[in-house]
Amino acid sequence: MTTDQTTLAKLVLKSQSDRRLKRGHLWIFSNEVDVEKTPLKNFTAGEQVLVCNHQGKEIAIATLNPGSLICGRVVNRDVSHPLNKSLLVHRIKQALALRQACFSEPYYRLVYGDSDLLPGLVVDRFGDYLVVQMATAGMEAQKDAIVEALQKCLKPEAILLRNDHSARSLEGLDSYVEAIGDVPEAVELVENGVRFMAPIADGQKTGWFYDHRENRAMLQRLSPGKRVLDVFSYVGGWGVQAAAAGASEVVCVDASEQALAWVGENAHLNGVDERMTGLHGKAIQVLKGLIEQGEQFDIVVLDPPAFIKRKKDQKSGEAAYRHINELAIRLLARDGILVSASCSMHLDKTALVEIVRGAARHLDRHAQIIYQGGQGADHPVHPAIPETDYLKAVFARVYLP
Amino acid sequence: MTTDQTTLAKLVLKSQSDRRLKRGHLWIFSNEVDVEKTPLKNFTAGEQVLVCNHQGKEIAIATLNPGSLICGRVVNRDVSHPLNKSLLVHRIKQALALRQACFSEPYYRLVYGDSDLLPGLVVDRFGDYLVVQMATAGMEAQKDAIVEALQKCLKPEAILLRNDHSARSLEGLDSYVEAIGDVPEAVELVENGVRFMAPIADGQKTGWFYDHRENRAMLQRLSPGKRVLDVFSYVGGWGVQAAAAGASEVVCVDASEQALAWVGENAHLNGVDERMTGLHGKAIQVLKGLIEQGEQFDIVVLDPPAFIKRKKDQKSGEAAYRHINELAIRLLARDGILVSASCSMHLDKTALVEIVRGAARHLDRHAQIIYQGGQGADHPVHPAIPETDYLKAVFARVYLP
Repeated sequence: MTTDQTTLAKLVLKSQSDRRLKRGHLWIFSNEVDVEKTPLKNFTAGEQVLVCNHQGKEIAIATLNPGSLICGRVVNRDVSHPLNKSLLVHRIKQALALRQACFSEPYYRLVYGDSDLLPGLVVDRFGDYLVVQMATAGMEAQKDAIVEALQKCLKPEAILLRNDHSARSLEGLDSYVEAIGDVPEAVELVENGVRFMAPIADGQKTGWFYDHRENRAMLQRLSPGKRVLDVFSYVGGWGVQAAAAGASEVVCVDASEQALAWVGENAHLNGVDERMTGLHGKAIQVLKGLIEQGEQFDIVVLDPPAFIKRKKDQKSGEAAYRHINELAIRLLARDGILVSASCSMHLDKTALVEIVRGAARHLDRHAQIIYQGGQGADHPVHPAIPETDYLKAVFARVYLP
Repeated sequence: MTTDQTTLAKLVLKSQSDRRLKRGHLWIFSNEVDVEKTPLKNFTAGEQVLVCNHQGKEIAIATLNPGSLICGRVVNRDVSHPLNKSLLVHRIKQALALRQACFSEPYYRLVYGDSDLLPGLVVDRFGDYLVVQMATAGMEAQKDAIVEALQKCLKPEAILLRNDHSARSLEGLDSYVEAIGDVPEAVELVENGVRFMAPIADGQKTGWFYDHRENRAMLQRLSPGKRVLDVFSYVGGWGVQAAAAGASEVVCVDASEQALAWVGENAHLNGVDERMTGLHGKAIQVLKGLIEQGEQFDIVVLDPPAFIKRKKDQKSGEAAYRHINELAIRLLARDGILVSASCSMHLDKTALVEIVRGAARHLDRHAQIIYQGGQGADHPVHPAIPETDYLKAVFARVYLP
């Protein structure tokens, strides 16, 4: 199906409401639309529109969802080419060129939404397998074109649509998982030279978090001979890499027994099972137990889920980060290193550094921040969209001066 | 010489003026001193004092310079141990432990002032040679103890005191260079596997900028087969590493013929002379000339000196960054990568990303930020002292969408 630009309805913005778009941003909020000229109720979810500024100048093509707070997502500034298989192929090739310039093996986030000018679309690549998430009605409407474009650009063995994440409800989309081709339960990937199986069918999100790649590479550099604690380990991305890099012992903590079972698989895959242990339980309880037992670690990795999901959770979320960082520091051996991560958009890097500082000072120790990592190059940041810059990993050497 | 704590005079702070110190900060501003109780004129530059809060509680030992805006620098929170050879040995060993944990070869900033709890002292290590900078009267007063402590901890071949930097005038210190032992004109170092000669005797600062180590490692990853332009090249830290990593051609631009001569030496040292060219001239003029000639590069590195040295230069400095970034983007080939660095404390990472965004948008291109680097682990950040976190290197892929 081809969308012909001449058939697109117009969406007129209020005066000044094109300013953010001029800066390169891609979102249109519903209160920025001139609903007297172009009532939102006239549009259907997922359709494409010709965005016009208040003077009537055609400035972009966007996908529309009249029921959503972010009602429009710009898909092209060239108003002669709407989002269709042809534009998808073009954009996927541009995204692929970046990944191929940065990575030597085909394991990465291939498409990262807004940053790759494909708002609402995420594609993770595991060699010949692709896992796709569509987060907007605009992308959902292009489902067939997306599958065809990916097949054309990458000729994958199979594609899994993991359209079962919670953000879809904001767009009024249902939750489903669909396999195109023969999709296994788990697929192999290589990250920083270490092999993993990622449970794409029923793991978290797409099954793997490629975003911490560079931070895990830094962990590998620090790991030889060290005793490492990996808290919120999931399937062992941090812990198994530490062990593979020569850590003397790695303890992985996770609340999911299934995740820990995958840690075991991944440890085995790299021949490091004998140096790895899994501890099942909630992080806070496990950390307190380890403190009581007098355990000490050279490196503690904290990679928690987002404690601050919404602005209103700011205060309680920051308190939760402080608490767990303090517990982690109490487990550090002399000259130990804390790796404190956060994927909360509402906690910026400065705030995370401040949490580490406060936790260390509270225990009368000096913290030196030796690395402040973010997302790898396969999660590029769109410089006009701060939300695309969400990941932090602060490495701190902590000691009694 | 040993400084005996019992002989230290007291310095009393105003009410609430100990708050910053409680957070871990090390600086005391002259307007925070209770000069009625302890007039600053009673002290001599470089002497150590017992810092007391307004209630009279002894909270730290600091070095003092009554004529300086930052009149006090905390050297210990343990009030029983003043700064002397013994404390210096302790702190240098702590600093060394961090570097040895992070780097396999003895080439790094060994002591980074405040962050290593040695305010005013910088030591760069080039194997058996050490280059030292003392920036405060407090450190200058410990000159002999510093040399003895370094000799004890590292047994260096020679030590060069490069006490000829401009910041010393703020502390009323004179400018001098002094060699302890036989110091050559230039010394060898290895960074990211590439060999260099650093002109320690008459080069910039200590002769080499170790701070960009991780960012140059990232450049190496992107360089194979690429044509690279290195603007403000100095002795070739970026350019020679790009060539050694497999860049097809590297052009280094610098206003100093002497720096370009060292680029040649360093290229030769790594067997990459045939792929390297030096262009002598002012950056802006050279970039404009290259644009006129229709030259294009796959990667352009901009590592300018601080354009914003003081707050009052903010506006003109930001304009200068914008201008040069735009010139650099105009020189980028299709899918090119801009490496935009800044060492201005007054331009934070967000502001630098914004400059890259604006420059790209102005040329109707899309910028994807693929890496946001900072200082390496040998320049740890003190989490209570934002000034210790000064370096930025933003890598952006820039393309016509």
